[in-house]
Amino acid sequence: MMTRDQAVELDRQSPLAGRRELFDLPDGLVYLCGNSLGALPRAVPDRVAGVVRREWGAGLVGSWNAADWASLSARVARRLAPLIGVRPDDVVVGDSTSVTLFKTLVAAARLRPGRSVIVVEPTTFPTDGYVAAGVARTLGMELRWCDPGDPAAALDDDVAVLALTHVDFRSGAMFDLASVTAAAHDAGALVLWDLCHSTGAVPVDLTGAGADFAVGCTYKYLNGGPGSPAFVWVAPEHQEQLDQPITGWWGHARPFDMVLDFEPAPGITRMTVGTPPVLALSALETALEVFEGVSTDDLRAASLSLTDLFIRLVDERLPDSGLEVVTPREHERRGSQVALRHPEAYGIVQALIARGVVGDFRSPDIVRFGFAPLYVTHVDVYDAVDRLVEVLAHHEHLDPAYSARNAVT
Amino acid sequence: MMTRDQAVELDRQSPLAGRRELFDLPDGLVYLCGNSLGALPRAVPDRVAGVVRREWGAGLVGSWNAADWASLSARVARRLAPLIGVRPDDVVVGDSTSVTLFKTLVAAARLRPGRSVIVVEPTTFPTDGYVAAGVARTLGMELRWCDPGDPAAALDDDVAVLALTHVDFRSGAMFDLASVTAAAHDAGALVLWDLCHSTGAVPVDLTGAGADFAVGCTYKYLNGGPGSPAFVWVAPEHQEQLDQPITGWWGHARPFDMVLDFEPAPGITRMTVGTPPVLALSALETALEVFEGVSTDDLRAASLSLTDLFIRLVDERLPDSGLEVVTPREHERRGSQVALRHPEAYGIVQALIARGVVGDFRSPDIVRFGFAPLYVTHVDVYDAVDRLVEVLAHHEHLDPAYSARNAVT
Repeated sequence: MMTRDQAVELDRQSPLAGRRELFDLPDGLVYLCGNSLGALPRAVPDRVAGVVRREWGAGLVGSWNAADWASLSARVARRLAPLIGVRPDDVVVGDSTSVTLFKTLVAAARLRPGRSVIVVEPTTFPTDGYVAAGVARTLGMELRWCDPGDPAAALDDDVAVLALTHVDFRSGAMFDLASVTAAAHDAGALVLWDLCHSTGAVPVDLTGAGADFAVGCTYKYLNGGPGSPAFVWVAPEHQEQLDQPITGWWGHARPFDMVLDFEPAPGITRMTVGTPPVLALSALETALEVFEGVSTDDLRAASLSLTDLFIRLVDERLPDSGLEVVTPREHERRGSQVALRHPEAYGIVQALIARGVVGDFRSPDIVRFGFAPLYVTHVDVYDAVDRLVEVLAHHEHLDPAYSARNAVT
Repeated sequence: MMTRDQAVELDRQSPLAGRRELFDLPDGLVYLCGNSLGALPRAVPDRVAGVVRREWGAGLVGSWNAADWASLSARVARRLAPLIGVRPDDVVVGDSTSVTLFKTLVAAARLRPGRSVIVVEPTTFPTDGYVAAGVARTLGMELRWCDPGDPAAALDDDVAVLALTHVDFRSGAMFDLASVTAAAHDAGALVLWDLCHSTGAVPVDLTGAGADFAVGCTYKYLNGGPGSPAFVWVAPEHQEQLDQPITGWWGHARPFDMVLDFEPAPGITRMTVGTPPVLALSALETALEVFEGVSTDDLRAASLSLTDLFIRLVDERLPDSGLEVVTPREHERRGSQVALRHPEAYGIVQALIARGVVGDFRSPDIVRFGFAPLYVTHVDVYDAVDRLVEVLAHHEHLDPAYSARNAVT
C-alpha cells in the first residue's frame, strides 16, 4: 500500500515542486476543483488593484495609451500560445466561451459553403451543443450528433465542421487531436477543438495536429478568475478568408477612423468584437505568469503522476466501495481529472467538502476531481482519498441533508 | 460676463452638490471625458479587492453559491433599471456592447419575419453600423441608411427594425425617444435604441416611449470601468417570442441540468449567453451605488445647467475664435456633451490636456466635452473654458507636435 510519506517524496521530486507557492490557497484545503475554477495566483490582487486605482482611477481615459489597454489581448496571447502549440499572432481573447464558440463556428462553417452539417458529440459540455444548434439554425444548416467513441463515423461529404471537446468535462476522456483532425480533413471537413478542459493541464499541439480552429476558457487550469474571457485560435491559412458574423469595431481594419463600412482587420484581429474587458484581461495576463518556465511536458508528467496516484489509491483502499473509475486508465486517453461513479455521488461530494476536500458533482452520479498540476500535490491526493475512505466508512455521504440530490438512490 | 464666483454659487445650489466626493478623481483635473470612460467611484477598489481575495481566493468555486455570483446580472439590473425607466426583471448584463447589439438585433429582426430591411443612421457610432451590416448579411437582409434628421422617412413595409443611437456620440444631438418609436411602430417596425451616450446622464423612459429593445454600455456615464459589460433591455411583451442566436448555457431554462437540447429560459434570461464576468459585474454593481437617491430629473437639470454654462461661456468669451458649437442648443435635442468644430481640433484637445482639461478629439474636426453630472462641476466648466481661451490666445494648439493630426489644416 502506498503511504503518505511516499506521497511527500513524490512531491519533493516533482519538476513542479514549489509552484504551489505562487498561489494563494486556503491553509489545509485540498482543492480538486481547479477544472471548474482555478485558484488565485498570488500576483493577481496587486495587479488588479493597480489597474483599478492607478490605470482607471488616476490615468482615466489616457490609460488606453499610457497602459496600452488595447494590447491586452495580444499580451495574454503571448503567454497562452505556448500552452497550445501555436504562434501568439494567431490568438485573440475577449468574449465569453459561448460567444467565442458562436463566432468561430459560424466563421468555420462559412469556409465550407457547399456543406450543410455541423457535427458535435452528445457528451460535450452542454453549451457547445446549444451554441452549435443556434449556429446551425441561424445558417440554415443541420446539427448531427456523433458517437463520442468514434466521431469519424459521422463524417461525410455534407459535413462542414466537426466540433469536439478535447477533454470531456464529465468523464475526463481525451481525444487524440492529430488523428481526429486527420479524419475530419480526409472527409473534407474542418475541425473546431474546445480546449476548456485541457489548456494548462494537458499538452495541446494544435500546429502539430494540423487543426483549424480552437476555443477555450481561461478560468479553469489557466486561473484567470471567475468568468474570465475565452480565447480563440485560427490556423494561419484560414485567417484571410475568415468571415465571422459579429463585426464589431475592434475587428475593423482601422477602428479609430470610424468610417461607415466594415473592413475586416488583417489576420486574427478580425475575430475581435468589442471593447476589451480591461480588468479581466489584466488579471488573466498576470495569472498566466505562473506558467513561466514550465514546459508542457512537465505539466503533463505531473498531471499523470497525480491522476495515476489517485486511481491507484482508490483501487487499493476502496476496492468494494461501489466507486467506479469512469476516467480512462490509459494515459493517452486521460485528461487531468478523475471521475468516479457512485449512486450517492452528491452526498460524497458534500461530505468531502465538509472534510476540506473540494471536488464537484456532475449529474446524475459522478464525483469529479480535477488535478491542476501547478498547485495540487501528491499529498493532497493522498489526503483526499484518505478522507474519502473516512466518509464512506462513517456513512457521512448518507446524511439526510444530501439525500434529495443523490440522484440515483 | 459670467464669473468664476457665480460658477461656485451654481455648484453650491446644485441638487447633486457633494456627489463628486463619491469619486476618486485626481486633484485639479478637469475631466470632461466621462462620456468615453467614466471616473472611478471610491467604493469600487475595495469591492474588487474583496471579490479577488475573499470570494475567488478564499471562497474558490464555493463562491458561486456563497457570494451568489450567478445573481450579479440581476443585481446590476436592479440599480440600472430606474435610470432607463424599466423593470429590473427585463434587463440582463454581461457581454460587450457589440456582442449585445448583435444578439439583440438578430432577435428583433426574427420578430418581423416577413420584412427584410434593417435601418440605421450613418452618423451612429460605427460599431452599430458594422454590427447591423453583419446581422443583415447573416440573416439575408438588407441594410438601409437613413437621414439622421428624419429617420422616419426611411421606413416602409419592408423595414423590420430601426436601430438608432439615442444621443449621437459625435455631435451630442438627441432623438426624441417617444416620437421616433411611434413612427417606427406606425410603419410596423420595431425599434432598438442604443443608449451608450445617454444612460446615467439623460432621462430615458423606455416604458413611457413604448420602445421595444435597448442596448447600452456601462463604462461611460455609469462608471463601470474600462471595458465593463453592456446591458440589454427587452419590452416584456416581446420576451416570450424572443429567439436570440447565441444560445449559450446561461440562457437555458435549466443550465445545470446539462440536458442535450436547448430550451430558452423564460423571460429576459434567455438573452444571457455565457458564464458571467464576475470581476467586471461586481465592479459595476458597486459603481452604480453613486446613483442611489438621485432622480433622473436632478441628473438632467444638472447636466443641462453644465452644458448651458459651457455654451454660454464659449459664446461670451470666444466669439471670434473659429469655434462652432455643433451640439444642438435646444434642450430637448441635446445630450450631456458639447461638441465644438474647429480646423485645429486635434491640437486644441492636446493643448487642453497639457493644461489639465481632458476632452477628446473626434475626426476630422470635433473637440468633444462630456459632462457627467455626478462629478463635473460648474467650476470645472468655468476653468475649462478659461483654459481654452488661454490655449487659443497663446496659439498652444498650433504646436508643431500636433500638426500631423490637425486633420483639416
